[in-house]
Formats: sequence, structure tokens, C-alpha cells
Amino acid sequence: MPVGTLATVKTLTPAQLEEAGAQIVLGNTYHLHLQPGEAIVKQSGGLHRFMGWHRPILTDSGGFQVFSLSELRKITDEGVIFRSPRDGRMIELTPERSIEIQNALGADIIMAFDECPPYPAERSAVEAAVERTFKWLKRCVDAHTHPHEQALFGIVQGGIYLDLRRAAAESLVSLDLPGYAIGGVSVGEPVELMHQIVEATAPYLPADKPRYLMGVGTYQEMVKAIAVGVDLFDCVIPTRLGRHGAALVQGERWNLKNARFREDFTPLDPTCPCYGCRNFSRAYLNHLVRSREVLGIMLLSLHNVTELIRFTQKIREAILNDSFTTEFSHWL
Amino acid sequence: MPVGTLATVKTLTPAQLEEAGAQIVLGNTYHLHLQPGEAIVKQSGGLHRFMGWHRPILTDSGGFQVFSLSELRKITDEGVIFRSPRDGRMIELTPERSIEIQNALGADIIMAFDECPPYPAERSAVEAAVERTFKWLKRCVDAHTHPHEQALFGIVQGGIYLDLRRAAAESLVSLDLPGYAIGGVSVGEPVELMHQIVEATAPYLPADKPRYLMGVGTYQEMVKAIAVGVDLFDCVIPTRLGRHGAALVQGERWNLKNARFREDFTPLDPTCPCYGCRNFSRAYLNHLVRSREVLGIMLLSLHNVTELIRFTQKIREAILNDSFTTEFSHWL
Repeated sequence: MPVGTLATVKTLTPAQLEEAGAQIVLGNTYHLHLQPGEAIVKQSGGLHRFMGWHRPILTDSGGFQVFSLSELRKITDEGVIFRSPRDGRMIELTPERSIEIQNALGADIIMAFDECPPYPAERSAVEAAVERTFKWLKRCVDAHTHPHEQALFGIVQGGIYLDLRRAAAESLVSLDLPGYAIGGVSVGEPVELMHQIVEATAPYLPADKPRYLMGVGTYQEMVKAIAVGVDLFDCVIPTRLGRHGAALVQGERWNLKNARFREDFTPLDPTCPCYGCRNFSRAYLNHLVRSREVLGIMLLSLHNVTELIRFTQKIREAILNDSFTTEFSHWL
Repeated sequence: MPVGTLATVKTLTPAQLEEAGAQIVLGNTYHLHLQPGEAIVKQSGGLHRFMGWHRPILTDSGGFQVFSLSELRKITDEGVIFRSPRDGRMIELTPERSIEIQNALGADIIMAFDECPPYPAERSAVEAAVERTFKWLKRCVDAHTHPHEQALFGIVQGGIYLDLRRAAAESLVSLDLPGYAIGGVSVGEPVELMHQIVEATAPYLPADKPRYLMGVGTYQEMVKAIAVGVDLFDCVIPTRLGRHGAALVQGERWNLKNARFREDFTPLDPTCPCYGCRNFSRAYLNHLVRSREVLGIMLLSLHNVTELIRFTQKIREAILNDSFTTEFSHWL
């Protein structure tokens, strides 16, 4: 899922995203609540209509942003009170309020409001967060007014404590939700530890429901997670790299500002079907990036999104052909 | 002509420009000489190929920028020496050098290297500039190596002195060039004075050759200039306004950040066929502009370019129907 934080996948039109093969995009509840506010989005006919995107959308719960971005004021069993970075007023986010906002936004998949502990964190703190997250999940289920239109996914927390992860997964599964996510990863822990967490969690989530690894990932992170059963990812990497003048090309990261591209008149990736690769050269991209032209970050973002979606398409085909572990062995 | 200073009309793809109805775009020789340099453009197969634009291109001579943007070091009959704002080295631009660069860029229309006096300027200084511009024009004609592939236009100078304008126009016409431009306007003089200059110059340029008013304009400036015979314009207004969150809508300028658009779910201009107007609301544009999202400036730039081109299309139709002066009387 390309990330469309503020009801736009940065620098790209919905038409370009469709052409890139995006089946679903993510919107951030925390950001949309602050600007423009869910009331405006609802009045306009929901998030799909507001942003002109007619394929599925997933919204997160706002929990991750409240814990990672905000000046936190108070966290209780009831919920979280924080200061709005926009206008300084105090905002309370609870499981009920998160679901109410997500019901108003109207995404196809919505996420339970969870407590995401930082890394590193003491076992006792993580244990408490897992317990609270489960209680909050049940309140989310109760508060959800559109269960037939919007699939509510639960989130497995548990930090780096693999037994807590397993226990959290098993509790969640007892609620028979339409999908499950692995959260609290990619928060600063070593990547090897992240893989261990995913490996110790995914097998306890049902294979016939979507398993979503939040905030991941790169080529290798995706391959390793898919190998243990993950189906769904979201990551800002393709658009963020694009805005920094970098491209994902066949498994590598290239800085297009580099002088080696100055007189390179070949397409960025001759095998890529995106608009940029079909129409422009590396030399032109180098020129645009050096000139800080918006078209440069747009073309690179489009390419990077196209590239990562194509990568998952190739993985899907390999799985269907029973050739995944051989074809992608160099990533495993 | 939308302005594509650095081989890109800011924030727009060539595909979007074609959809907007653009028949020709402008590139700036001064900027392209500094970055990426005409050698790179030529190596890539010329400016059309480099920027992926397959319709006509016009390049200016660099004169205007040398006189208005640079730290000028020396101006002689030979040419102009200035300090590069990019790396501080001294650069000499002469009629021969400007044409050499424009030959390398390979645009369909190229412009003579002229001396553009500031506003205000003494009559004697303007007189000298007109004389020098004419001498430089003849050197441009002699230096031009591709007269059958690239049409070289001369530029009428003369400041606000209408008799100098007429004399300059008549000298230029004696050279029987493929097109003529009115330069040295829109440099700070009152708009009423600009209209007087155009009115006193255009009639002395042949009606069967393109007459190009440089650096203009707005709705009214175009209508008034067309009324006295001008055929061609270039202006950064549509894309610059877009980057500042403003839209041209049916003759007006709107700031999309304005709170009155916050809950306005109608299209920006319901009569406009552009991608933005077909797919998004004013409320969404308000949200994008407030959030400083690139998609906002892109959609506004696209709309503004589409709007000004549609405006000239309507004028063209009205001229063919003999209804121009009645239909556009409120602008005249």
C-alpha cells in the first residue's frame, strides 16, 4: 500500500497510482483528523470521493502517530490525551473516538486503536501495553458502527518479547476478526530482530485472513515477511526516496543526483513500464533533481511506487508457480 | 506558450501539457546553458527528446535574463560578460554564442540576442540599445546554422518611446524574418503604457508573420494585444500562481487557501475539462494547499495552463466568427 497520509500519496495523482498498479492506499487518521478534519471528509462523501481514489483504502487508528509524533500529555486505560501540533489544543483519542473518526472517513479497512510501546522498552511495560491493546480492541469492536462496510483489523503488539507476541496473536485470533496486523515493528529495533518478531508472530495468525505488517518495507523486508506468511505492507519509502531524488532500481537504491547519470541517456530502468521510464532518460532525471524541479520528485516517486508494486506482483506469481523460495533465495 | 524554463513546465508532465492543449512551450537559453548545459541537451538528441515534448518549442536568447537576473560585469558592442550565479565563473554571451547555444538546443523557433533596457531608461540609452539590438540581429542571422529547421525571430526594442518602437519595427521587417517579437515590455512599466507600446508597434509588423509579445500575460493583456494583431504569448503566470495556491477561474484569480473553499464540494471550474476539475472539489484543493501538498500546486498549475489556453482558443474561434470585439468587449 502506497502511503497517502493527508489524502494524497505525495506528488502523485490517483490516475498515476492506478497506472502504477496500486490496489489499495493507506490514509492516516491522526493527520486527517487534524487537517482537514473527518467532518469535511465525510461531508464530501467519504475519503474515496474526497481524494478521487476509487479503489480500496485502509486507515490506521492514529495510535502510532499519537505515541511517536505528539507531545503526549497523559495515557490512561481510557485513552490518550495529547497536544495538537497544529493549534496547540488538547485532543483526546480513545478506542471509541478512533473508530468514530475512521467510520466517518469511510475506508474499506480500519485499524484498532492500540498502544505502541517504544523500542527499547521493559518487558513489564510491553506486557501492560499488550493487555491494554487487547482491552481497547474489544472496545473498538463494540464502537464500530459499520462492520459490514469496513473491515476492522486487530493489531499484535508485544515488542521484542516473542512469547508476548504469540500470546497477543492468540488472544486476537479468538475474536475472529476479518484481518490481523503486526504492529510495533520498524520503530528503531535492528532489522534482524524485526524479522525474528515477524517469524514468531505470523504463524499464529490465520492463513485465510489478511496478515498485515505495518510500516514495512524494503525489498528484503518484504520477501522475508512474505516467506513467513505476511500479505500486506505499507511504507513511505518509495515516495520519501523519490522526494529525496533517489530511485529503487532492480533491488538497488540510486541517488539520481550522482554525476554518473549526467550523460546517461538510457531510461532509469529499461524494464519498467512507468511513464517516467518510458519517456525520459537518467540524464534528464539527474538534471531535474539538480534543478530541484517538482517533476523530478514526481517521476521518481511514480517509478518507485511502480517498482515496489511490480516486485510484489513478481512474488505473487512466483508463489503461484511454486518457485518463490528459489527465485527469491538471494533475499532470504 | 507555457514556460518551461529548465526543460520542464514546472510541476507538469508533457502528457498533462498535451492534454491541456498546449501547442508549444518555451525554454530559457540562459537557464539551460547554466544547467544542464547545451552539450548535454544536444547529446541527448535535442531539447524535444531531452524533455519528452514532441510538439514545437521556442527558446529565448538569454538576453532578457542576462540583463535582469545577472550580476552584469560588462556590456560592449561585442556582447555581455556576466558572472554565473551557479558557480561564479565569468560567462560571455554574444549574438553568435546565443545562436550557437540555441542551435544546439534545437528548438523550432529561436530568438535574436537583444539588449533589453530597464524601465525607466533615458531616451538616449534606449536609442543606443535599439541600434545595438539591430546590429546584433544581423550577426544572429549570419551565425545561424540551421535557418531551415529553426525559425529565427527578431525582437523590437525601443522602451516607452513610440517613435523608436516604430523605427525599430521597420528596420527589422526590412530583413524579412520568419517572425517578430515585441520585447522590453512587462519590465515594470504601468500596464497602460505597455498597451500603448504594443498598439504603436504591432501594426508595423507584417500580419502574415507571427507577432509575439514577450512575457505577457493575463486575460486582459492578451485580449488587448490580440486586438492590435499579436499572435503569440509566453507567461509564467499560470504555473507561478499554481505554485502559490491560486487559480485562474473564468477571468478571476482565486486563492484556494481561503476559508470560503473549506466546505465547497463543487469542482474548481465546472466548465473546465482539466483532470483536476473533473476529479476533485474546491474543498480538496483547499486541503491540499493548506497541507502544502505537491499535488495541490500540480493540479492548480494544470488547471491554470488549461484555462489560459482555452481562453485563447475561445478568442481564436471568436475571431473566425467575426465576433471578437463584441464577445470580448468587457476586456477591451
